[in-house]
Amino acid sequence: MDIIVLRPGVTAKELRHIVKKLESKGFKANISKGTQRTVIGVIGDTSKITEEESNAFEAMPGVEKVHRIIQPFKLASRDFKAENTLIKIGENIIGGKKIHIIAGPCAIENMPTLLKIAQVVKKAGATFIRGGAFKPRTSPYSFQGLGEEGMKILAEAKAKTGLPVVTELMDPRDIDVILKYSDVIQIGTRNMQNFRLLQEVGSHSKPILLKRGLSATIKELLMAAEYIMAQGNNKVILCERGIRTFETATRNTLDLSAVPVLKRLSHLPVIVDPSHGVGKWDLVAPMAKAAIAAGADGLVIEVHTNPEDALSDGEQSLRPEKFYTLMKELKAVAKAVGRKI
Amino acid sequence: MDIIVLRPGVTAKELRHIVKKLESKGFKANISKGTQRTVIGVIGDTSKITEEESNAFEAMPGVEKVHRIIQPFKLASRDFKAENTLIKIGENIIGGKKIHIIAGPCAIENMPTLLKIAQVVKKAGATFIRGGAFKPRTSPYSFQGLGEEGMKILAEAKAKTGLPVVTELMDPRDIDVILKYSDVIQIGTRNMQNFRLLQEVGSHSKPILLKRGLSATIKELLMAAEYIMAQGNNKVILCERGIRTFETATRNTLDLSAVPVLKRLSHLPVIVDPSHGVGKWDLVAPMAKAAIAAGADGLVIEVHTNPEDALSDGEQSLRPEKFYTLMKELKAVAKAVGRKI
Amino acid sequence: MDIIVLRPGVTAKELRHIVKKLESKGFKANISKGTQRTVIGVIGDTSKITEEESNAFEAMPGVEKVHRIIQPFKLASRDFKAENTLIKIGENIIGGKKIHIIAGPCAIENMPTLLKIAQVVKKAGATFIRGGAFKPRTSPYSFQGLGEEGMKILAEAKAKTGLPVVTELMDPRDIDVILKYSDVIQIGTRNMQNFRLLQEVGSHSKPILLKRGLSATIKELLMAAEYIMAQGNNKVILCERGIRTFETATRNTLDLSAVPVLKRLSHLPVIVDPSHGVGKWDLVAPMAKAAIAAGADGLVIEVHTNPEDALSDGEQSLRPEKFYTLMKELKAVAKAVGRKI
Amino acid sequence: MDIIVLRPGVTAKELRHIVKKLESKGFKANISKGTQRTVIGVIGDTSKITEEESNAFEAMPGVEKVHRIIQPFKLASRDFKAENTLIKIGENIIGGKKIHIIAGPCAIENMPTLLKIAQVVKKAGATFIRGGAFKPRTSPYSFQGLGEEGMKILAEAKAKTGLPVVTELMDPRDIDVILKYSDVIQIGTRNMQNFRLLQEVGSHSKPILLKRGLSATIKELLMAAEYIMAQGNNKVILCERGIRTFETATRNTLDLSAVPVLKRLSHLPVIVDPSHGVGKWDLVAPMAKAAIAAGADGLVIEVHTNPEDALSDGEQSLRPEKFYTLMKELKAVAKAVGRKI
Repeated sequence: MDIIVLRPGVTAKELRHIVKKLESKGFKANISKGTQRTVIGVIGDTSKITEEESNAFEAMPGVEKVHRIIQPFKLASRDFKAENTLIKIGENIIGGKKIHIIAGPCAIENMPTLLKIAQVVKKAGATFIRGGAFKPRTSPYSFQGLGEEGMKILAEAKAKTGLPVVTELMDPRDIDVILKYSDVIQIGTRNMQNFRLLQEVGSHSKPILLKRGLSATIKELLMAAEYIMAQGNNKVILCERGIRTFETATRNTLDLSAVPVLKRLSHLPVIVDPSHGVGKWDLVAPMAKAAIAAGADGLVIEVHTNPEDALSDGEQSLRPEKFYTLMKELKAVAKAVGRKI
Repeated sequence: MDIIVLRPGVTAKELRHIVKKLESKGFKANISKGTQRTVIGVIGDTSKITEEESNAFEAMPGVEKVHRIIQPFKLASRDFKAENTLIKIGENIIGGKKIHIIAGPCAIENMPTLLKIAQVVKKAGATFIRGGAFKPRTSPYSFQGLGEEGMKILAEAKAKTGLPVVTELMDPRDIDVILKYSDVIQIGTRNMQNFRLLQEVGSHSKPILLKRGLSATIKELLMAAEYIMAQGNNKVILCERGIRTFETATRNTLDLSAVPVLKRLSHLPVIVDPSHGVGKWDLVAPMAKAAIAAGADGLVIEVHTNPEDALSDGEQSLRPEKFYTLMKELKAVAKAVGRKI
Repeated sequence: MDIIVLRPGVTAKELRHIVKKLESKGFKANISKGTQRTVIGVIGDTSKITEEESNAFEAMPGVEKVHRIIQPFKLASRDFKAENTLIKIGENIIGGKKIHIIAGPCAIENMPTLLKIAQVVKKAGATFIRGGAFKPRTSPYSFQGLGEEGMKILAEAKAKTGLPVVTELMDPRDIDVILKYSDVIQIGTRNMQNFRLLQEVGSHSKPILLKRGLSATIKELLMAAEYIMAQGNNKVILCERGIRTFETATRNTLDLSAVPVLKRLSHLPVIVDPSHGVGKWDLVAPMAKAAIAAGADGLVIEVHTNPEDALSDGEQSLRPEKFYTLMKELKAVAKAVGRKI
Repeated sequence: MDIIVLRPGVTAKELRHIVKKLESKGFKANISKGTQRTVIGVIGDTSKITEEESNAFEAMPGVEKVHRIIQPFKLASRDFKAENTLIKIGENIIGGKKIHIIAGPCAIENMPTLLKIAQVVKKAGATFIRGGAFKPRTSPYSFQGLGEEGMKILAEAKAKTGLPVVTELMDPRDIDVILKYSDVIQIGTRNMQNFRLLQEVGSHSKPILLKRGLSATIKELLMAAEYIMAQGNNKVILCERGIRTFETATRNTLDLSAVPVLKRLSHLPVIVDPSHGVGKWDLVAPMAKAAIAAGADGLVIEVHTNPEDALSDGEQSLRPEKFYTLMKELKAVAKAVGRKI
C-alpha cells in the first residue's frame, strides 16, 4: 500500500482524475478526508509500482506527496528471504560464523611484489587475495593497471598460496578475462550505479563483491544488488567503504551503522573496507576492529610491503608487521562478539 | 611546487629518506625549519606528480600532510587556455553570447509523443532536442529505454524540426549507434567517473555533454573532462545538475555557484540542468532563471506533453504552456545580464 | 492524519497495544491490511502530535515506520496564512515588490570606517546598514567585536545616513543593548537552533532576520521561525546563506532552490546572503543576481572599503566600486523578473 | 609557517604589497618562483595568525589561496600536551584504562521514573547518570524539560545511587542551578558553536562534556574545546554523536573514525553517544560495541524503563533488559581491546 497526500484545496475534478488513474493501473483508492489534508490509500500490490510511476503521481495536479510503504527492492530484502545468505567460494563460506579477511595491494604492480604480499597475508590469516588489474583512477595520467597481465600475476599468486582471488571489473568488455581469472568479481564504488555493468555480472554465476557508492544511500546499494539478482545471480556480498560527507580529516566517512541496518533490511552478507573508508593507514586498525564489533562478515584491507612505492593508495596500506599485529587484535574482537577469524 | 609538512619529532633519517625519494623523481627539496613544523618545498614541475604519487608521500614515516599547489587538471584549465572554448554544433555555437536551451522528455517513449514535444520546444525557442533511448534507472524493474528504436525516433524528430540531438551513452558497447544518430553525446551523472566510458567518447570527435556526478566535487568534474580531453576530444560541455546533500525538500541541491567557479577554473562552456537539480516542476522555472543570472551558457529542461503519463521523471517535467511562459521569462533575464536566447 | 506502517509479523497483541495508545491520546485508528504490510491511518488532528510523540511510536514493538502527513510548523506555514507577510521597518517594506539590499561590513571596527562604508552603500542604493558588534568567531583568539561600543557606532551611521540597522544578537544577556540600537535583530547561522535565544527574541516585537543554520533543513529553518512566532513575534525574515556540503571550492553551497521552496511552504519573506554563501568576493556578484532571479525579497551583502584590513571576512567583502557595479546589474535583473530595487 | 599561493599573472606591485603586509605583521616572506605558480612561505610564529587574518590575505589582489600549516587549536592539541588528559570526577577517572558508561533517559520526567532508571543503570554497571532538565527541542510545542525541578530529581537520584550527574546547560542564565546540581556539564550538539555558552562554562571548573555539532568538522570540535580551555577550564570530554549526511536510514551517521582521529590530534578523552548517533534502539548495541573497539573512553547511552511513553527520544532508548545484555557484551569487547568497564 502507498499513500498519496493531496494539496490543500485539491478540486473534486483533480481527485477524480487521480482515482481514475489508480484504477486504470489496477489499484483501488481508499480516500480519507482529514482535518488538514485528504489522503488516498492505494490498495493492491503496490510493490509493482516502479519509482517512476510513483514519481509521475507527484506530477499530477492536486498531489502534494507520495509516501511509499514498501521498499523498492525485493530479492535483496529480508521480507523476501528471512535467513542469512551464505556464499561458498572454494572452501570459504561468507556470511556464516567465520569472518573473512580479504587482503592485498590496491593495484597489482609486478609478480614479485604481489607474490610476497600474498604470502604475507596468507600467513597472517587472510582467506582471500585482492588486487586490481583494471584500475579506476580519478586522473587520466595515473597508472591505469596492468590489465590481463595483472590477472595472470593474480592467478600465479592463487596457485602459490591457494587463496581465492578478488578483483575489479570496470568495463563490460573485460568480462571474459575477469571470469577466467577471478573467484569474486568486485564492482567498485564508482560503478555501483553503472547499471549495464551490474546487468552483465548478474548474468554470470560468479560471486559479486558490490561496493557502496561514495554517495549512495543504503537503499540505493540494495537496489544495485537487486539489479544483479534480477538477472539471476544471487551471490552478492555488500561492502561498506565510506561515504562522502563534509568531514575532511578522513578520506571518507566510514558508515559502520550501515552494517546493522543492512543486516536488518537484507539477507546478504555485509563486509567493510576500512582502508578506503578512512584513507590513512594509522586509522585502519581501529576501524577494522570496530567493523567486526558492529557485526561485519568480513573485511577488505590493503596491505603492501612497501607503501611509499605503491603505485596506488600507498597512504592507506598497512605494512606486513602492522597487518600481523592487526590480525591478532581482530581475532580477539571477533571472539568477544561470538565470531571467529 | 608542492609543500610537504613534516610531523613534529620527524627524525633526521626520515627527513633524508624523503629528500632522497624526491631527488630520485627529479625534484629538489627546499627545507624550511619553522618554530612548530619543518616544511619541504618541492622544486620542479610538480604538475607531473600524479595524485597517487603525492598520496604515497603521505605514507612515508615523518610526513604529516602534502599540500598540492597546482590543480591536477591541465587541458581543462584556464591556466592552459585563457579564452573561452566555443563549441560549434550545426549552426549553434555553445559558449558564446547566445544561451542555448536543450529541451525534451527524459525518456523517448514513442514517435508521436516525441515529435509533438520536439515541435513544442522548437516553437518556444529551444535549439536542441534531448531524450534518452538508453536510460540509467535505479530500479531494474523500471523502463530501461527503447534502445536503437528510440534513436531512430530522435532522428525523425531532428529531420522534422532541424534541432540537433542530445542523448546519453551508458555503455561503451553502444557507441556506434549513438555516434550514428546523435549530435551531442551525454555522459550521465552516474557515469561521470566511468573512466572507460570517458576514454571511449574521448577517442571520437562528437561534442560531449558531461554531467556532474551526484557527489562529485568541481575538481572531480574537471578531472572527468580531462579524461575525455586527454584522448584528444576537446569539445566538452560541463553541466551542473544538482549535488547530493542532507536537504530532502528538493531531489538534489542545485549548486549554482559551480557556474562562476567553473568559469574561473576552466575555459569550457557550462550549462545547468534545473529539472534534475530540483526534481519538481514548479521549482524549475525560478532555478532556470537563476542559472542564467549566474552566468550559465545554456540549460537542459525536461518538457513533456503529458507529465503524469511520462515513463520517467514526470514529476520534474514542464508542460508545454509552462515552457512557453518560462522561455519568455528567460529571454528577459538573459537580456538583463547581457546575453541572448 | 499520520500513517503508521507495521513490521511484517506484527502480532495481534502488539497491534492492539498500538491502537490503545492512539485512542488514549484521542485518535482513532483506521487499520488497512495490505498484501505486504499492515498500515494504521491515524484519524484526528494529528498536527497536535509533537515530533517526540511521533518518534515514541517508532519505539513500540511491531512498528516499522511513522509517516507524518502534516508539516510540524503551523504559524510559519502557508496553510495557516495564504498571503505574503509584509514587514514594515521605518519606511521600508520587506516582502513586497521592492527588493531590499542590506549592506555593510562583517564586523564594526571603528567609527570612520563604518561611516564611510555606510555612505557608500547608501549612495549605491542599499536600504539597510549591517555590521556586527557581537561576533561569533570559530577561534577564541579572533576579534570578538566591539560590543556596546560598536552599537553606538552603528547608531551614528544610522543618524548620518537614515539607514535602519541590522545587527546580530548572540547572547540573551545582551538583549537590552541590541533592542536599544537595532532595527532588525539578526539570529546568526550558528544560533538558529539556540532555542532560548529564539524564545527571547520572540518575546519582543522587533523584526528578526533568521539565518538558516549551516546544516539545517528547510523544515528546521521553519521550525526555528515557529519558535519565534510561538512567542508572539510574527516579524520573521528568513535568510538562506549557504549550507555545508562535501564541496570545498566554495565556503558553503548556496542553496538557491531554498528560495522558491520556502515561498511555497511559508508566507514569510525570504532573503539571501551570497557573501557568506560562497565566501569569495568574485563569486558574490553572480550569486547575488541569481538570488534575485530565483525570487528573493532581498540580499545581505558584505561591503568593506579595505577588505584586506578587515578584522573579519575580508575575503568575501566587496570593495565600493564593485558594489556600485553590482547594484546596477541587480537593478536590471530585478526588472527582468518584475521586481525593483 | 603558512604558504601563500599567488595567481598566475600576479604583478610585481601586488607581490610587493603582499610582502609589505606580511612584514607589517612581523613575518618574513620567502618567495619561490615555480614554473606554474609563485609561492610565498611565511616565516615566523604563524600560529598567532588568526583564521580571519589568514582569510583577509585571500582578499588581496594577486592571491589565489592560503595554505595553513599549523592547526588553529593549541591548548587542545597533542602538540601542546603529549600525554592523555585524565579527568577525575568523584572516584571516576575518564581517559584512563577504564571505560565509563553514562546512562539514563533523554529527559527527566518525574521522580519515580528517574529513580527507577538510575537503579537499573547503576546495577548494570554504568558509572554516571544522565538526564536533561533543560531540553533543546526542535519544536516549540514539545516538552521543554522540568527546569530546576528536574535538577532536584537528578540530585535525589545521585543521593540514592551515588552516581555522579551529567546534564545539559542551554542558556548562560541557568549556569548557577546547573553548577549547583551537576557533576559534569553537557554542551549539546546544537550549542557546540554557541561561543558565549562555551566561554561561560570555560570560566568555571566543572568538567564539560562537549558534544560534536551535527555538521561540525573535527577541527571545529577541537576549536570549541579550545574556547572552553582558553578561559582556563581544561576538563573537556569530547563526544562524537553522529553527523548529518545524505543517508536517511539512520537519524545521523555515527562517525566512529572521529575517535582515532581525535586521539591523534588531541590529548582530551573521547566518548561516543550511539543513541543519538543512530536514533533507533536496535542499532544502539552494535554501534556501542564498535565505539569501544574503535578506542572510545566511554559511552553515553539512553535507557528508559518505558520508551514508548518517554517524553523525548523514546525511539532510541534501550529498555532495562536490553541494557543489561548490552553491558555484558561491552565488557567482553572492552577486554578484547585491553580496556575494562
